[in-house]
This record gives sequence, structure tokens and C-alpha cells, in this order.
Amino acid sequence: MSYSVAVVGLGAMGMGAALSCVKANLDTYGIDLNPVLLEKLKQAGAKEVAANADAFADKLDAVLLLVVNAAQVKAILFGENGLAAKLNAGTAVMVSSTISAQDAKEISQKLTELNLIMLDAPVSGGAAKAAQGEMTVMASGSAQAFEKLQPVLSAVAGKVYNIGEEIGLGATVKIIHQLLAGVHIAAGAEAMALAARAGIPLDLMYDVVTNAAGNSWMFENRMKHVVDGDYSPLSMVDIFVKDLGLVTDTAKSLRFPLPLASTAFNMFTSASNAGYGKEDDSAVIKIFDGITLPQKEEK
Amino acid sequence: MSYSVAVVGLGAMGMGAALSCVKANLDTYGIDLNPVLLEKLKQAGAKEVAANADAFADKLDAVLLLVVNAAQVKAILFGENGLAAKLNAGTAVMVSSTISAQDAKEISQKLTELNLIMLDAPVSGGAAKAAQGEMTVMASGSAQAFEKLQPVLSAVAGKVYNIGEEIGLGATVKIIHQLLAGVHIAAGAEAMALAARAGIPLDLMYDVVTNAAGNSWMFENRMKHVVDGDYSPLSMVDIFVKDLGLVTDTAKSLRFPLPLASTAFNMFTSASNAGYGKEDDSAVIKIFDGITLPQKEEK
Repeated sequence: MSYSVAVVGLGAMGMGAALSCVKANLDTYGIDLNPVLLEKLKQAGAKEVAANADAFADKLDAVLLLVVNAAQVKAILFGENGLAAKLNAGTAVMVSSTISAQDAKEISQKLTELNLIMLDAPVSGGAAKAAQGEMTVMASGSAQAFEKLQPVLSAVAGKVYNIGEEIGLGATVKIIHQLLAGVHIAAGAEAMALAARAGIPLDLMYDVVTNAAGNSWMFENRMKHVVDGDYSPLSMVDIFVKDLGLVTDTAKSLRFPLPLASTAFNMFTSASNAGYGKEDDSAVIKIFDGITLPQKEEK
Repeated sequence: MSYSVAVVGLGAMGMGAALSCVKANLDTYGIDLNPVLLEKLKQAGAKEVAANADAFADKLDAVLLLVVNAAQVKAILFGENGLAAKLNAGTAVMVSSTISAQDAKEISQKLTELNLIMLDAPVSGGAAKAAQGEMTVMASGSAQAFEKLQPVLSAVAGKVYNIGEEIGLGATVKIIHQLLAGVHIAAGAEAMALAARAGIPLDLMYDVVTNAAGNSWMFENRMKHVVDGDYSPLSMVDIFVKDLGLVTDTAKSLRFPLPLASTAFNMFTSASNAGYGKEDDSAVIKIFDGITLPQKEEK
């Protein structure tokens, strides 16, 4: 009873998911443009790796997409030499990139026309959870889609939320989740910047907050980078320019005001325009002038 | 070797602190205007309780103030029939209300003139932690102040941060902490309001967020009230009108912009003006129109 899955996009999350599939004894295929990542997955026990799925598309039970945005999802599935047309009817496609509900619906419609089954299934948890096969999946789709993808969900997820049948609900829940994640990073930066301005040592401020009711998952995770002065990108400022852009698009389509998220979107956008787009998202703190931040210690 | 402490203000935090002092075998005195609270503390083993400290002011080693704001602290200490003038020289006064650094400095100066010793010592943790003697204390003051208050700190605190010698640093750290706490509640409300608008069941949204990277201490604690439709006040909207007002005052005095906290301040102020000031602070979600929120189930 073999089960074949191709993971498309071997970044931090995709690689973790692919390795989790290997560990779960699924026949795992890897697709990425970066040969170093392909080789890493191959060494870890993948069945086959390649820049596209031409050699194995007809063998697949499922495809898991973990690329950066909707444009990439669409290009991979429906672009030139698109993957969707090569898959057997009934293959399940799990779309786990953070995209809008509108894009999720468009992609679902095209997949349905090709007799393919979509699960609208964004994920959370960061690279560490992905590596452990413990991602949180917030999914919507048919019972058939959940059933067909059960081996993949078991391999990659610690928790699977079934939001409902309607494609787009999974995307929306993820986008609302990103509203909180983005605002919490920006609020953490604002608080730490004010502490720096007031002459409070940032390591002390970090210690107080993480032991008190002002803490958040993102504060604890990201403001450590500020304390260490290390903005090596784990997740970049530009990811939140994109994700909070999706948040504001979603609110606009629902005709709903978002006083905090729109402000946080402006903060990340300013940080990106100031040249910090490819740094760790905690670098949003650099939009504040008139303060001195900790510098990374030379080793 | 007896040690006498008076706790002034027997609200949720003050009562917890006073009971913790009783448990730690300190000679504990209680001061409040509410006879029900006085009786409760007396029954629990307090040495003496009263509406003012006239009968026992000269017996005290320490005073712990846990009243609502700086105006109350000043009235109690320096107002008509003020407590400060009745204390023995060398008595330690621990000011644990959330107040501005400026007010902390003014109060310290007046206490010093009376040969009294101040610890600028705001607290966090909520009523539950206070009841367990496990508050987080963020304190600044002289080594003498810390030393003299050691029995009280041991009784009421799970963690004591020594921010430095300068009075006002403790107040500032607490205010920056409140920036995060207030923004996190308002962001939680904004996210849950958007979820309601998008047709996502709020109990499901709550479950997803509390199991993912978008979580915060405040989201988990306060958005449960929204899910339950229960706005019985644990901490009121008006407390955050006050605290985020202190945050914006602090930023102004430091000439520093706070894009998110000033927005959250506006949200709580709007909620208060709309008539929700005395409800639980999670009622800030009621500023959003065009949504239907969960109603409390009748028992």
C-alpha cells in the first residue's frame, strides 16, 4: 500500500514537511528550482527530486504546495508546462501557501475542471514545527479531500482544523491568524523601541515581558533577535508586507475596518522601503529613529 | 521578629497581595473604603483593618499601595489626613499602582522629605497570580528600599525584577508592558471581529489561534470572554483608557511615535464613549459594527 506525494517548494516549511513525509514512509518526491535543496531531500530518502514533476507526475496520489504566494501556486499548476494537466484524475492537491480566499477559489475551480481535488490548507508553526511534522493546518474542503490527503496530514501536522467544506475558509482563517502574528511583531518592535528610548536595557525588558501578561508567541520568538542584534532572516519583513497586504485586501472585500492591522501593514511596508525587506521580520523595529539598538556580538 | 505591613486598596490585586502577606506570617493591616473587603481580610487573619491607618500607622515597617491611579496614591499619602505624615521615619512605601514615571518621581520626592523610603514597584499577573503570592514585580529604587521590603516582596511576588536605582524606571517598564497588553487585547478584538464578519465560527478561530504562532497571553485570556459572550468585568475597558493614556503620555514626554499603541488607545476610548467603559476590556470588540457576536448562554 504505497502512497506517493510530491512536495513543491522546499523552503523552511516545505523541506520540513517533505522530510516528515519521508519519515512517515510515504513515497516522497521533491520539486524545487534550487539543486542544493533537492540534493538535501534526496539524501534524506526522497524517492526522486527534480526541478519539475514531468518524470513522476502520473505516479502521484497527492501534491503539497508550499511556495511563497498565489502567483507561484498558479504558475506551477497552470503555467507553461503546468503540473495540473499532468496529474491523474482524482489526485489531491493540498495548497498550503498563504493566499487570499479569492485565489483559493479560482485555483479550486481550475483544478475541479481537471477532475482534481483541492484542499485549501494553510499552515502555521514555523520551521521548527514543520521539521517535527507538527505543523498546525487550518483546512477547508470536501470530505473526499480530507480523506485522500489523510496520509500527508498525518505526516506533517500536529493539529488539523476542519474549518468547513467551502474552499476559501482555510485561507481566511490563516489570513486572520496572520493579522495577529503581524500586529504582534510590530507591537513588540514598538514596545522595545520605546524601551530603548527610555533607557531600559532591552534584555531586561524582554525578560519582564516574557514572564508577564504582555507576552505573545511572536514577542518571545522575534524580539529575542532584537535583543541579540541578529536580523538574519528566518522569516523576512517582505513576507509580512505580503501577508498583511492579504489581510487588508480581505478586509476591503468584506468592507471592514482594521485600525491596527492597517497600521502594522504600513510599518512593515515602511521597513521594506527603507531597505530592510530581506532582513528578519523583527527588523521592522528599524523604522524607529532616535534610538540605539543592540548590536550583534562578533564571535 | 515581627514585621508589620499595611496594604492599601483591597481590589483584586490588593486583596491577593494582602492575603499572601497573611499567609507569610507578616502582621498584616488592611485599608479600604469598602467594609465588605475589610471584613474578608480580617476573617482571613489580618491584624487590623480600617478605612484609614490612624490606629496603627506608627507600628508599620512597610506600606504597600495597590490603588487605581496616581491621584489616589497622592491623596492617600499626602491628602487630608494623609498617611505619609503619620509613618515613622524609615518606613518603606511600595507603590505598586500603574502610574507615570513623572508621578513616581514626584511621590518619591515628597516621601524623601519625610524620611520615608520608596520602591517604585508596579506589578503584573492578574488576580489569580496575586492570590497565589506569585505576582511579577518590576521595581526600581535604592538597595535599602529593596532590603527593607524583602519580607513583602517574598510574600507577594513570584518574580522580582530590579530595574535600577532610579525612581521612575519601574513605572516606565510597567507602562511599556501595558502597551503590549493593551495592543494585544485590541488586536485580538480586531481579529475576532474580522472572523465574525467572514463567517468563521469564533470558537474555532479561538482554538486555531491559541494553538498557533498568532497567540498572545491576552488573546488566550480575554478572547475567551468574547467566545462566551461574557463581558463581566475582570479588568475594565476604562483601565486601558487610563493605561494606554499613560503609554501615550510617556511617549510624548520622550518625543517618540507609537503608531500601534495610539491606535489601540483610540479604540478603547471609543469603546468607553460608546458606553462599554465598565465592561470587561474585551468589550473593545463592540466598537466594530456590522457583525454578530456570540451571546452569553442563559443558565
